[in-house]
Amino acid sequence: MTARLGMHTLTEGRGLLFGGDYNPEQWPEEVWAEDAALMRAAGVNLVTVGVFSWGRLEPEPGVRDFGWLDRVLDLMAGHEIAVDLATPTASPPPWLGHRWPETLPIDESGHRLWYGARNQFCPSSPVYRERALEIVGALADRYAGHPALALWHVGNEYGQVCHCDESAKAFRAWLTKRYGDLGTLNDAWGTTFWSQHYSDWAEILPPRLAPYIINPAQRLDWRRFCSDALLEHFRAERDLLRERAPGIPVTTNFMGLFKPVDYWSWADEEDVVSNDHYPEPGDPMAPALTALTHDLMRGLAKGRPWLLMEQSTNAVNWRPHNLPKPPGQFRLESLQALARGADGLCYFQWRASRFGAERFHAAMVPHAGADTRLHAEVRAHGQELRGLAAVAGEPVPARVAMVFDWASWWALEERGRPSDRLNATDQLLSYYVPYFERGVSVDVVPPSADLSAYALVVVPNLFLVGDRDAAALTAYVRGGGVLVVGPFSGVVDPRAQVRTGRFPAPLREVLGASGEEWMPAPDDHPVRCRWSDGTEFEAHTWTELLAAEGAEVVAEFAEDGGPAVTRHRSGEGVAWYVGTMPEPAALSALTGRVLADAGVTGELPDLPPGVEAVRRGDVLFLLNHGTTTVEVPIPHTTAEDLLTGSPATGHVTLTPRAVAAIR
Amino acid sequence: MTARLGMHTLTEGRGLLFGGDYNPEQWPEEVWAEDAALMRAAGVNLVTVGVFSWGRLEPEPGVRDFGWLDRVLDLMAGHEIAVDLATPTASPPPWLGHRWPETLPIDESGHRLWYGARNQFCPSSPVYRERALEIVGALADRYAGHPALALWHVGNEYGQVCHCDESAKAFRAWLTKRYGDLGTLNDAWGTTFWSQHYSDWAEILPPRLAPYIINPAQRLDWRRFCSDALLEHFRAERDLLRERAPGIPVTTNFMGLFKPVDYWSWADEEDVVSNDHYPEPGDPMAPALTALTHDLMRGLAKGRPWLLMEQSTNAVNWRPHNLPKPPGQFRLESLQALARGADGLCYFQWRASRFGAERFHAAMVPHAGADTRLHAEVRAHGQELRGLAAVAGEPVPARVAMVFDWASWWALEERGRPSDRLNATDQLLSYYVPYFERGVSVDVVPPSADLSAYALVVVPNLFLVGDRDAAALTAYVRGGGVLVVGPFSGVVDPRAQVRTGRFPAPLREVLGASGEEWMPAPDDHPVRCRWSDGTEFEAHTWTELLAAEGAEVVAEFAEDGGPAVTRHRSGEGVAWYVGTMPEPAALSALTGRVLADAGVTGELPDLPPGVEAVRRGDVLFLLNHGTTTVEVPIPHTTAEDLLTGSPATGHVTLTPRAVAAIR
Amino acid sequence: MTARLGMHTLTEGRGLLFGGDYNPEQWPEEVWAEDAALMRAAGVNLVTVGVFSWGRLEPEPGVRDFGWLDRVLDLMAGHEIAVDLATPTASPPPWLGHRWPETLPIDESGHRLWYGARNQFCPSSPVYRERALEIVGALADRYAGHPALALWHVGNEYGQVCHCDESAKAFRAWLTKRYGDLGTLNDAWGTTFWSQHYSDWAEILPPRLAPYIINPAQRLDWRRFCSDALLEHFRAERDLLRERAPGIPVTTNFMGLFKPVDYWSWADEEDVVSNDHYPEPGDPMAPALTALTHDLMRGLAKGRPWLLMEQSTNAVNWRPHNLPKPPGQFRLESLQALARGADGLCYFQWRASRFGAERFHAAMVPHAGADTRLHAEVRAHGQELRGLAAVAGEPVPARVAMVFDWASWWALEERGRPSDRLNATDQLLSYYVPYFERGVSVDVVPPSADLSAYALVVVPNLFLVGDRDAAALTAYVRGGGVLVVGPFSGVVDPRAQVRTGRFPAPLREVLGASGEEWMPAPDDHPVRCRWSDGTEFEAHTWTELLAAEGAEVVAEFAEDGGPAVTRHRSGEGVAWYVGTMPEPAALSALTGRVLADAGVTGELPDLPPGVEAVRRGDVLFLLNHGTTTVEVPIPHTTAEDLLTGSPATGHVTLTPRAVAAIR
Repeated sequence: MTARLGMHTLTEGRGLLFGGDYNPEQWPEEVWAEDAALMRAAGVNLVTVGVFSWGRLEPEPGVRDFGWLDRVLDLMAGHEIAVDLATPTASPPPWLGHRWPETLPIDESGHRLWYGARNQFCPSSPVYRERALEIVGALADRYAGHPALALWHVGNEYGQVCHCDESAKAFRAWLTKRYGDLGTLNDAWGTTFWSQHYSDWAEILPPRLAPYIINPAQRLDWRRFCSDALLEHFRAERDLLRERAPGIPVTTNFMGLFKPVDYWSWADEEDVVSNDHYPEPGDPMAPALTALTHDLMRGLAKGRPWLLMEQSTNAVNWRPHNLPKPPGQFRLESLQALARGADGLCYFQWRASRFGAERFHAAMVPHAGADTRLHAEVRAHGQELRGLAAVAGEPVPARVAMVFDWASWWALEERGRPSDRLNATDQLLSYYVPYFERGVSVDVVPPSADLSAYALVVVPNLFLVGDRDAAALTAYVRGGGVLVVGPFSGVVDPRAQVRTGRFPAPLREVLGASGEEWMPAPDDHPVRCRWSDGTEFEAHTWTELLAAEGAEVVAEFAEDGGPAVTRHRSGEGVAWYVGTMPEPAALSALTGRVLADAGVTGELPDLPPGVEAVRRGDVLFLLNHGTTTVEVPIPHTTAEDLLTGSPATGHVTLTPRAVAAIR
Repeated sequence: MTARLGMHTLTEGRGLLFGGDYNPEQWPEEVWAEDAALMRAAGVNLVTVGVFSWGRLEPEPGVRDFGWLDRVLDLMAGHEIAVDLATPTASPPPWLGHRWPETLPIDESGHRLWYGARNQFCPSSPVYRERALEIVGALADRYAGHPALALWHVGNEYGQVCHCDESAKAFRAWLTKRYGDLGTLNDAWGTTFWSQHYSDWAEILPPRLAPYIINPAQRLDWRRFCSDALLEHFRAERDLLRERAPGIPVTTNFMGLFKPVDYWSWADEEDVVSNDHYPEPGDPMAPALTALTHDLMRGLAKGRPWLLMEQSTNAVNWRPHNLPKPPGQFRLESLQALARGADGLCYFQWRASRFGAERFHAAMVPHAGADTRLHAEVRAHGQELRGLAAVAGEPVPARVAMVFDWASWWALEERGRPSDRLNATDQLLSYYVPYFERGVSVDVVPPSADLSAYALVVVPNLFLVGDRDAAALTAYVRGGGVLVVGPFSGVVDPRAQVRTGRFPAPLREVLGASGEEWMPAPDDHPVRCRWSDGTEFEAHTWTELLAAEGAEVVAEFAEDGGPAVTRHRSGEGVAWYVGTMPEPAALSALTGRVLADAGVTGELPDLPPGVEAVRRGDVLFLLNHGTTTVEVPIPHTTAEDLLTGSPATGHVTLTPRAVAAIR
Repeated sequence: MTARLGMHTLTEGRGLLFGGDYNPEQWPEEVWAEDAALMRAAGVNLVTVGVFSWGRLEPEPGVRDFGWLDRVLDLMAGHEIAVDLATPTASPPPWLGHRWPETLPIDESGHRLWYGARNQFCPSSPVYRERALEIVGALADRYAGHPALALWHVGNEYGQVCHCDESAKAFRAWLTKRYGDLGTLNDAWGTTFWSQHYSDWAEILPPRLAPYIINPAQRLDWRRFCSDALLEHFRAERDLLRERAPGIPVTTNFMGLFKPVDYWSWADEEDVVSNDHYPEPGDPMAPALTALTHDLMRGLAKGRPWLLMEQSTNAVNWRPHNLPKPPGQFRLESLQALARGADGLCYFQWRASRFGAERFHAAMVPHAGADTRLHAEVRAHGQELRGLAAVAGEPVPARVAMVFDWASWWALEERGRPSDRLNATDQLLSYYVPYFERGVSVDVVPPSADLSAYALVVVPNLFLVGDRDAAALTAYVRGGGVLVVGPFSGVVDPRAQVRTGRFPAPLREVLGASGEEWMPAPDDHPVRCRWSDGTEFEAHTWTELLAAEGAEVVAEFAEDGGPAVTRHRSGEGVAWYVGTMPEPAALSALTGRVLADAGVTGELPDLPPGVEAVRRGDVLFLLNHGTTTVEVPIPHTTAEDLLTGSPATGHVTLTPRAVAAIR
């Protein structure tokens, strides 16, 4: 049954979703009516309710107060606004920590984390689990058939970690499942190193404060466990909701490239993939990073539509210095998400709080009220979304896949590696940018994905790779695909053990090249490289001592003539290896050659700088992230801009932050 | 009775006070006689004794050794040197922490702070309180009638904070008094946010290490409580001293703009306001910051004289790199304090310690002995102060008030605000500098002060403002006053809750202007602004989206023409609002216009840069903080420089670090 | 008997030692045979085995598994490779911490440090001691007569610190021995300061987290105790080894200028001085710092040969960004150690680990295997060492001594000093560099050393100095020696108490100069100084207010003409004092004058920049650390380069990283 649920369950009959987090419990009821009226005027059709309301719903252990929530849901139903009802378990009330201190998390150094903020629970605490399921069950029972209820929102931004003895116990249970016996664990963790041999399961602990670098295999398994422990809790809530309130899709809000949780293993467990995303207004890389994040969500949703659960209309409050968004900026960002597969565009939050730690986080209705620049833009944007309803459900076609993996990320970014300046997400973003700039759509996929439909597969870094995944990449090339592999890939196996022999050992054959030394580069002068035509480019941070073993040397290190970039025809396909970190212009040039190998072109031939082009269904979105007005030539002979309703032929003029949706 | 006590009790018959902390317990008694002789030669007439002598006075619990102190006080009496006798409770001996570990403070993360340094006590510990009062009582009983005893010095530089369970209990008692019932507390703290509802008083804790941003209202009340808990201890010692040794004024040494303690609530509880001040020799802003600090002390003393309890003759030891003071520097600083209302100029410390953590802190007698450059200057300064005795007791008249408030400071500088670069004390100092540079005297006052006597009231920032204080500012303008309000003021109420509507809500009417967005500015380029005459200036860090509502727009943001500075005639007065942070030159220009509105001028029309001018009684002090010799034109026809005894007419020549005291 | 043991015991019949850490327990036994064959081919004749094998040798408490180690030692013996057998006590297995948590160390803030990395033991734990001695005894019993056993390696890189209650108890026992009675301790620690009087031994604790700066005398004694507590453990293991396996020399590997352990007090306790040294490839000061470290080892070995136990063939893994070594670099470093007295050149480690925290640390056999650039260099280097066998046992003659002291280092670098920018090791290195650049050999010696044989004694900084050591320096000068003393020397006595009077009090007479103020200099402009000939130089960070008292003023501070550098003829000798930190060129010029006073010259008159020249026995080593090829003129008429076997006359040509060994 759950297979039938998804974003379409929400958009059917509603069109694109528009709304935000709604926390009426922070306001006297007389404000609620104004809220509902303003929502209607702004085209809001979905609100998330109850994310942090455990203390309000269960003010004392076992004492329930649901009346206010009844009235909120009735009010929403009366205004035809769907409700994304949250289980309130992201933040237990003080009474839980006070009566059961063992539910409070312990950090790596042994400090207890107290209530007074939010999220203070140990994911492995049986008391927390029991109390959480009780309130979730009561919520499900009460609102199962409520007409406003459209979506379950389990918890919030999962990411809690706890190092307590209860967590240690759960970690041991998890390890027992993974390894079966202690000898296998000792082998996997390499406990002959530094005398770490475990003689009894009871000795095994989470990584805790230690005199020096902790065993990287222990840390990798700990990260896996932490993600799984949270997932287990999520599943418990989800199962209860499905049982007590069937027919309602279930989600939990992700946070993009968020390290603590392996979303590849989570996404299949929910009916709707949703995400919270807050670009930094002052970051020039934000448009590309945002696009990448959206493409990751689409990957998690297996190409189906997803929901932007939280974004911000203006400045957030949690950075040290929170820049505002100029007029038009949040609309630009919202339409970017739509263009990249979102069918719902929601905000944190509806009305700015007066109190609490997020008083200064922007909202759809600011402190100054509805008669403001900001709310006027919110209302206009809500209204214009109605004209884009046809986009709902449409796919974003992509011929390029970019591989990203949480376990590899975790394994890579440990202490004690050659350089802490080669990072998984930075590497991912650098490889993504040239595609983004060319208007080439990219799917972000896990290493285990079926790659057969793609013309090009890019692996910016895959430090950890399993045998099967390596074999699949090889087979993909042999079968005619084009593959690009970035530096320091194929280094360790899933136990974080170095694969001996020349690297990247499991891809050596398909790449026709291999290396024997990783050589981080000094910071004070760039690495000079030379294309085979003699022109030079700069690279940085990283070099490798490589040898071509059949591959063509596309670029070499100027200092010693060793290979820097290689290209190998293997079977029907082509495999590239990049043993350094080229400057952006060089990486872009390289991307051009790779795209040529794959026969892939961008949406538009000559995209002006700053303009993003992405196609969704039969609509071509053009978004100007730059600071100047540009003319974008378009090939269509008869086209229409869905946002203006005007015909678009020959070219489109985009002022800064303007968007066109050409059909 | 206590009303009659004050600085005058000390200066009557003694003139200006000169001296320092004296720790004879660190030296063999044969050194004491040399000390006394050197003190006499240097004009020392007040020494602070016993600040850290608990361990010496009570070497074991209940065992007292007062003989040495008898001899010290007798020696001082014999040399006609008054004693500021300290209660030794700032630092309990190791035996207290060893036998009663619960007296040791616990930090926010749960770490116990041990003995081995100083100040290791929990302000809410009943054991500490009991033991402290016992030794204080014994001291009072023994020295009540001693001829040397002139002043009680309670504790030292109060500022201790503890997060232990005993502190939690005291915090709850304090909250119960403040809020009466739990519902009111829940409302005040906004506990519907993030599920923080308290169902039982016992659940309430100090802010402790938590997964994320702690409730700002909880933190604000915690800061209030911490200041009050220390004050309660101070009061207990003071009351005992007054009871057992009546007629002796009581003080405790403040530390200027010291965040943990709300000195506005403390100052009325002591007979003499005293302060410790250590300007950083390498800081070009130090002269202005020092003047501001002194003006704050005068404000705390309600315009009466105060005592500079600690300053340094030379380098301190607690900065990473401790710059020395060039010859003449400490005299310049000492006379600056005198000019701004100090009737006593004391130093930490008399003789440099050989051991302990402050071995390398300068003193009046350095390690190298009395036959040194430094001690010669000390002696000369002590002697010249006799010629300035007439200044004692004289007021420093000021027509400008600058409002500063601890609660607002606390509330402002919490995590989760628009920008951590807008700070209360930086803002205060930037607004103070133009007055300092013009020789315009300023009183620093609390928001609740009677403003009626001032021609100009400056509010650099008042993030938190109560209704009554906001109304008083409004009434002040209506009645003819000139008011200047800086950015991000009037934002929250005393519960730290945002005042909804256009800001600054409670001052909107009197300002004739209001805003709807706070917009921190990017770091990488300045904010361009334009005066109404078309000339431009730069601002930084902060902008606001403002609208004039009756006010004149004095300056606008160049980018969008929105108001940046407004001026509003309201009733008989004028109210200015500044919605950005102008560069110093622009803030100075603005100050010129504001002073013109208020009809206030500086002490001298054309003060050379680096020269401070301040009038105390009928003496005009001119202090050269610059590095070049300057001529200062003075209007007096017949005047005398009290420091040289020479006539001063037409102008005064000041070499670097020179001072003139013109009468 | 132990007096007869030493490096010669190892090199007799073996020549120079070459090898590394060998961890066969990390590999299947089939790899061992390849290891042994590769070792033979590379000339390896010494391997360190078992450093972290406690968990492998004693997988459960009391359960022993020595079979694998038997086979390893037999294999080595069969290949004529000597074994440096380690006691495995540097890292207890998890079962120790799990069953006896009191063996786990506690840091200064009270955090327990767990297993999962290495080194997690409390040096004062009786349980740890007992268990460690049991396994050490068993090891000694088993391998006492094994033909492979050549050296005992006790523990590894000692440096553990623990603040637990058991450590407190041991600290008190240590203090009782040092001070006898509590009154003496109170006097020594200056506990009248800040009320720190101890009324009972039980009150005394290690320095733990405290509200402010901890008593520096307490901290100094704590550092002494921590070094001694480890030494006591070392001694216990050593004594057991000597008893059970007599005739085998004992060592433990030092770490150069490693602050936690006073190697002067350790070196006499072992038969062989050995060291681990890892120069930072990107640090231009690395060649000089390495030379200095080697000279310190030679000082620790009292001029006898020492063993370079660990160095790296290539990049390490524990820096944030680990630069590789270019071809020839590790050989250059290895020969540098040989030239400065090492008779053994070993590496961490033989074969790169696949797992554990040091997977990415370089080795003699890299992950990529033996058919690599790196291993080829290893093999060539091992082979060329045979040609240098005659160097073994030869001394490195030096006429200059440089004084360095751990207690002074500890005492100096405490919070609360005039400047944290004057550090003991930086100061040592700056004074060392001009000698290194001139090819003047230097012995690093403790303050208590017999100085009579030296023509020149340099004291870059001796903040703490005892009366006897000060008198010895004075007598040295009177007897005809040349002495140079750097700033902030002679300040405190061994109790860390400031010596009152003009400084440096105990050296004032011999220096004929003294001071009254330490005056750190501002960062933003240099200190201008002037030689007596009128030429200027720059200094930084530090100045002093000095007066000549018989000494000649060699340089003065330009600002006020005060002495900056003085020179005093005293008795038959000359004593220099330097009251600032001259820029390198000025310090070099000063060194030239000092060398002239002492009649000392370098090995070669005109050494090109970057070339190190050092004589060992009758071999002159020339090492090119620079990046260009240079010609070095040599005075020999008939000479031979031992490395090439070619004659060397007139000059030697050195490409970058080249070395010549001229005889």
